[in-house]
Amino acid sequence: MIEFNTHPDRYRHWTLRVEGPLARLELRVDPEHPFRAGYELKLNSYDLGVDIELADAVNRVRFEHPQVKVVVVTSAIDRVFCAGANIGMLAASTHPFKVNFCKFTNETRLSIEDASRSAGLRFLAAVNGPCAGGGYELAIACDEIHLVDDNSSAVSLPEVALLGVLPGTGGLTRLVDKRKVRRDLADVFSTLAEGVRGKKAKKWRLVDASWARSQFGDKVAQRAKEIAASGEDRSGRRGIAWTPVERKVTQEGSTTTYAYRFVELTIETETRAATLTMRAPDAGQPRTAAEFHRAGAEAWFIRAFRELDDALCQLRFEHEDVSLVLLHTRGSIDAVLAAEAALVECARSDWLAREIVALVARVLRRYELTARSFFAVVDKGSAFGGVFFELALAGDRIYALDVDGVEIAIGPLSNGLLPMTHGLTRLQSRFLAEPERAARLAAEQPRLRAADADGEGLVTFLVEDVDWEDDLRIAVEERASLSPDALTGMEASLRFGGAETCDSKIFGRLSAWQNWIFTRPNATGERGALVSYGKPESASFDWRRT
Amino acid sequence: MIEFNTHPDRYRHWTLRVEGPLARLELRVDPEHPFRAGYELKLNSYDLGVDIELADAVNRVRFEHPQVKVVVVTSAIDRVFCAGANIGMLAASTHPFKVNFCKFTNETRLSIEDASRSAGLRFLAAVNGPCAGGGYELAIACDEIHLVDDNSSAVSLPEVALLGVLPGTGGLTRLVDKRKVRRDLADVFSTLAEGVRGKKAKKWRLVDASWARSQFGDKVAQRAKEIAASGEDRSGRRGIAWTPVERKVTQEGSTTTYAYRFVELTIETETRAATLTMRAPDAGQPRTAAEFHRAGAEAWFIRAFRELDDALCQLRFEHEDVSLVLLHTRGSIDAVLAAEAALVECARSDWLAREIVALVARVLRRYELTARSFFAVVDKGSAFGGVFFELALAGDRIYALDVDGVEIAIGPLSNGLLPMTHGLTRLQSRFLAEPERAARLAAEQPRLRAADADGEGLVTFLVEDVDWEDDLRIAVEERASLSPDALTGMEASLRFGGAETCDSKIFGRLSAWQNWIFTRPNATGERGALVSYGKPESASFDWRRT
Repeated sequence: MIEFNTHPDRYRHWTLRVEGPLARLELRVDPEHPFRAGYELKLNSYDLGVDIELADAVNRVRFEHPQVKVVVVTSAIDRVFCAGANIGMLAASTHPFKVNFCKFTNETRLSIEDASRSAGLRFLAAVNGPCAGGGYELAIACDEIHLVDDNSSAVSLPEVALLGVLPGTGGLTRLVDKRKVRRDLADVFSTLAEGVRGKKAKKWRLVDASWARSQFGDKVAQRAKEIAASGEDRSGRRGIAWTPVERKVTQEGSTTTYAYRFVELTIETETRAATLTMRAPDAGQPRTAAEFHRAGAEAWFIRAFRELDDALCQLRFEHEDVSLVLLHTRGSIDAVLAAEAALVECARSDWLAREIVALVARVLRRYELTARSFFAVVDKGSAFGGVFFELALAGDRIYALDVDGVEIAIGPLSNGLLPMTHGLTRLQSRFLAEPERAARLAAEQPRLRAADADGEGLVTFLVEDVDWEDDLRIAVEERASLSPDALTGMEASLRFGGAETCDSKIFGRLSAWQNWIFTRPNATGERGALVSYGKPESASFDWRRT
Repeated sequence: MIEFNTHPDRYRHWTLRVEGPLARLELRVDPEHPFRAGYELKLNSYDLGVDIELADAVNRVRFEHPQVKVVVVTSAIDRVFCAGANIGMLAASTHPFKVNFCKFTNETRLSIEDASRSAGLRFLAAVNGPCAGGGYELAIACDEIHLVDDNSSAVSLPEVALLGVLPGTGGLTRLVDKRKVRRDLADVFSTLAEGVRGKKAKKWRLVDASWARSQFGDKVAQRAKEIAASGEDRSGRRGIAWTPVERKVTQEGSTTTYAYRFVELTIETETRAATLTMRAPDAGQPRTAAEFHRAGAEAWFIRAFRELDDALCQLRFEHEDVSLVLLHTRGSIDAVLAAEAALVECARSDWLAREIVALVARVLRRYELTARSFFAVVDKGSAFGGVFFELALAGDRIYALDVDGVEIAIGPLSNGLLPMTHGLTRLQSRFLAEPERAARLAAEQPRLRAADADGEGLVTFLVEDVDWEDDLRIAVEERASLSPDALTGMEASLRFGGAETCDSKIFGRLSAWQNWIFTRPNATGERGALVSYGKPESASFDWRRT
């Protein structure tokens, strides 16, 4: 099992240091401790283990060190910034692992940008040496890139030239969409194994500043202090402890269960279906900002959504065969709505409540970027109110039982606070043809019996009691019988109606092409470029262009 | 060689009938005449040959029958509309052919939508029987869908359920983005082999109207007449003859040459590079609308761009190994600019000039949706003015020789008349970081020496005379050495900076996923769903979801 919990005291590859409004994240990858045996992490190259620490560090800066305003991301190895994802690891990985690894690292990069956007943090990449591939993709996820100007320090995306694959962790998309590098220069840069240095890199918009080595440390420190001195004073903020996510995993026959406090994920390998049960908050949830701070990571909102996040990661990496997830909710719909109302109210003025909202939004995006079908099951005892109904909207279908007492409710979080990857709310995306309905439902936040919810277009199938068991069983069997590849492509196409953004282009356009390239013999065949890298014999290509 | 020239008199599968403002396009696929031997075109299923006729028909309506305002697209076979792309053909095709076939059919569907958007034509799909897969994708490319309401006539996208692939000819994207079908209903519809009929299809927004069989013909005719009676009177328009594109193909050793009047495409199989030479207009080009009408399809603008279109199609289908196209232009830059000025001036009031502009725009979009690298070569004797410089902008790089007399010029077509697939102009897309520069260049339309063009960011590499030959040779060698798959994915990512649209999502998101799915054993392996279709043994899947 992959352990996504970690702690700065146990980081093998990163160091997180915080001093007042300044944080410093230093990379010194331990080459002897790859995530899985079989390759060496040379030159600050990374694998999943390195990225799990980075994802943890970004969360800790936000929740444990909320006084921070600037994060300097740099390397602790002299004249080496980061060589990108480890090639040996990629070459030895299965296709699903490669894809899931890339998706996770993509999401970590997005979490950096989310911290900029929604928490006002500024990330400075202090590129103190060669910065290649995923290393540069880490840098362009930051707000500013400062590059040392010497004879060896270049930024580069050598994937196309050296490996026959794409810089797929957002690289190509961010180049033209975020940094707005001219597309012909982006073309040159993306095919130039040695990359671009110093002033030319600045001129091409690949970096924001380049400094002589003698000045580099001072200039970066000066810029960091400048940002730290501007804007709001955060020195009065006190963080909360980012405690580990606890789970108990049991296996009985073909059933594996991940039991968390508020989340349970049950995998049935025989049917290739899983059941995800989310439980409503128990009593004593925070109502005021002070109570949120006292509760810390034990608050239902944090705990439940961190548990869901962990369950999604386990599902992706450890249960590749699962086709379909049935989403259940249990408990009091009032309790969910009350917790949500308090959170949204506190978020008007309290940083922690705002951070919790942003966390929930990220987990929901991870949910709908997961390559599994999600059907919500609105049945007796369910609690599809507020954020739980938002989860239902994030999935592919909603089955609702048409009997008294079965209800759904829209909550205040659904009114713009949980944007999808492409920027729309889930109500907007659902009602592209009826924007006025989306706006009304978001504003009125009604509580509706199943049949009325169906009338409002909020249910896919309203099912009578007598048909319920059979209909659900057939739905599961049918879904699980379909081609897993076709479902992945179909869901990626149907889930994101409306205009695309940089983020959604990364997952829709760039990742889709990379998935294709990763399966092609030109990359991963016996003589493919990814497999041949570093070997005496060079790659051999089937030249047909498609 | 594939012959893209055809004529209604020679159509095997379609009939085009025109009566005043009404045109009727009837499909009756001849099962005995597939494009290549080895499969039978049952139930109005189609292949490349059927689609070449459709593409021709759409052009003929626009240029030969400009009085037409409504096109009814229907089937001439009772109780059969169209079964979509032929499965036997798909199962037997190579991966590159499948991808190129899908791209061409996608572009034909877009040409229908372009006729709606830029020529004000309305297309009514009169769905008189079962309408499956690519058949429904044809229908949703139309402005309105009228479905007969009986027990057997359903619209359906059975690809996922029956074939383990996607409805990749725009189907999934148009479902949610164009028709704005609710995404959960789109999910149900796209996994339901039997599709959806009658009133439910209308309720789900899959069709615009459903009519009882007894009323169907009358209702469609009535609606067509209604549209024909509204809007501008086009009865005074006289079309031009849509003459065949003439080419001469010669082969000498490893060199194949396609020689047209204004275009020459030379393929070098040894270097996997091609040279595309576009020639500026000769004397006597039309200056007035009357002259454009007199010149007809012989006008340089029509002829040169139809020739380019044909060359691009030949390149895609017949020369899969070619990696790179060097774009040359020859002749007088003044002649190009004069022809362009006249065209743009006439397009203010003349339908034919407007149609020519729309044709040029479509060919340019085909150019940048071609999975080959394009480098423009601005050298002595070149004529990179106006639309020729626009072609340079459509490619990946621009090499310019830094000597006196080598110039480029921006023309009036570059100021919004030739939108890219995602809606931006090529200047906007190039200068995403400097929108004011894009606006100024489009407005001022300067003529610039190579060095000054470089100063304006309009050149990728400004090269001195002494380095010219070597630099170009190295550029070609380097490009041709790179992984063809990585280049395709890279170019698809870098060419379309900025927000996406329905059209660009079709080519970026949907097609990229389909490319991947087409290479997976779950679709095209020995036991894949596409290969197993219709055989006694059902498909066998590797269930891993990625």
